[in-house]
Amino acid sequence: MFVWRTTVKLHDTDAAGLLFYGHQFKMAHDCYEALLESIGFPMAWWLRESDCFLPIVHASADFKLPLFVGDKIEIRLRVEKLGQSSYTLAQDIVDSKGRSVGTVTTVHVVVDKKSGRKTPIPDKFRAALEKL
Amino acid sequence: MFVWRTTVKLHDTDAAGLLFYGHQFKMAHDCYEALLESIGFPMAWWLRESDCFLPIVHASADFKLPLFVGDKIEIRLRVEKLGQSSYTLAQDIVDSKGRSVGTVTTVHVVVDKKSGRKTPIPDKFRAALEKL
Amino acid sequence: MFVWRTTVKLHDTDAAGLLFYGHQFKMAHDCYEALLESIGFPMAWWLRESDCFLPIVHASADFKLPLFVGDKIEIRLRVEKLGQSSYTLAQDIVDSKGRSVGTVTTVHVVVDKKSGRKTPIPDKFRAALEKL
Amino acid sequence: MFVWRTTVKLHDTDAAGLLFYGHQFKMAHDCYEALLESIGFPMAWWLRESDCFLPIVHASADFKLPLFVGDKIEIRLRVEKLGQSSYTLAQDIVDSKGRSVGTVTTVHVVVDKKSGRKTPIPDKFRAALEKL
Repeated sequence: MFVWRTTVKLHDTDAAGLLFYGHQFKMAHDCYEALLESIGFPMAWWLRESDCFLPIVHASADFKLPLFVGDKIEIRLRVEKLGQSSYTLAQDIVDSKGRSVGTVTTVHVVVDKKSGRKTPIPDKFRAALEKL
Repeated sequence: MFVWRTTVKLHDTDAAGLLFYGHQFKMAHDCYEALLESIGFPMAWWLRESDCFLPIVHASADFKLPLFVGDKIEIRLRVEKLGQSSYTLAQDIVDSKGRSVGTVTTVHVVVDKKSGRKTPIPDKFRAALEKL
Repeated sequence: MFVWRTTVKLHDTDAAGLLFYGHQFKMAHDCYEALLESIGFPMAWWLRESDCFLPIVHASADFKLPLFVGDKIEIRLRVEKLGQSSYTLAQDIVDSKGRSVGTVTTVHVVVDKKSGRKTPIPDKFRAALEKL
Repeated sequence: MFVWRTTVKLHDTDAAGLLFYGHQFKMAHDCYEALLESIGFPMAWWLRESDCFLPIVHASADFKLPLFVGDKIEIRLRVEKLGQSSYTLAQDIVDSKGRSVGTVTTVHVVVDKKSGRKTPIPDKFRAALEKL
């Protein structure tokens, strides 16, 4: 499991006074980028140097409890499924009282930059994801 | 069905050159707000005057084809399910060639502002959603 | 002058109930992108085909009256200054009552993609800006 | 001076590959919110409990060097001016090499929630800002 902490910002909220639903996906991606960096495969590397892209092909989220500006949250990310050329990440967003306030699940596919086709998850990256 | 058109903006994209996945949910909400206004229940009315909130409790999306800055898209929204105190909206994002490039599904619950509890969909709003 | 119309979206607002100040710059850029397309130099062309980039080197804004979700606004853009290798755009945001609610000014520099240095505004683009 | 550190996220960038100009204002506000919390006046308190709002009436920024996804930045905030009922914050964004890559300046006015008029900066808040 990978754990990342952040604070809900004013621009994450909307005039209803709470986190805007779409921004929960942004926060989940922030956690994912922190994970990639922590295991030695930062997003900048994928964009500039890798032979592959990692597009998200599916995403879903549950919104269980409201989040307000200033709320401290902890995002707990785990690899839910590790396929041949795709992987699924499940994130649980936990507030300062330890309650799960929301979840985000994303399905990522590994695509070869040249051919534009699916390609197996690179071995070293797979090994890093397996260790989580 | 409700149809809404927009253009992918530069700030909807990221350094991978394409629409950032989380922003597809923003575009879907823009379409939903346009729908609410078109049927006489604009978002500002829900926030200021209505007795109810309409929080999103679940959302999911498929990302089928990449979207670039400047792409013209049409979002086709339909009511997938109309329950007692919740409704599900299904949106299909179609590019200028008529291809479905992505979908967004959201589940909304009607909550009484005072009690904070689920409450039936208001009759006039239900009637407006049924007409779509 | 170039005129562009839009509506304040829920995700443009924050928990204070009004437009988040940073999003005024986003709306101004949306108008700028609409301008670029209307004069035949769309943003996608600059990114993919042109020899130049057009980075913003300075921006400023005044916030005069609050904007709420659903507010209809008109953005009036004019070229304030057309230099050798830079140009300044001044945008006035006007609400449905005709009041100026805010302004945005941006300074853009033309940079050669290969050398990374300032380069004169391309002639045809200059001519298009002069016509506004 | 107040110092806050963050990392440029993928959704802070756009298809030009760099930080989207408008998002520099978002990062500056994140730093401001961290400051408010650190001096005991968190944003949530202003929104829910204080008698005043603190709207931004003017903002400006310089963009000196490009920022990419994953870049580590330090934002150095200082109070540039402390008036009767307004204050000006100057922020300098410094990259991991110690270079100033951009600046943001914001002018905030203290407004009484009931009357909607300018009111003096509350004494304790003024004292906290003076200590920076």
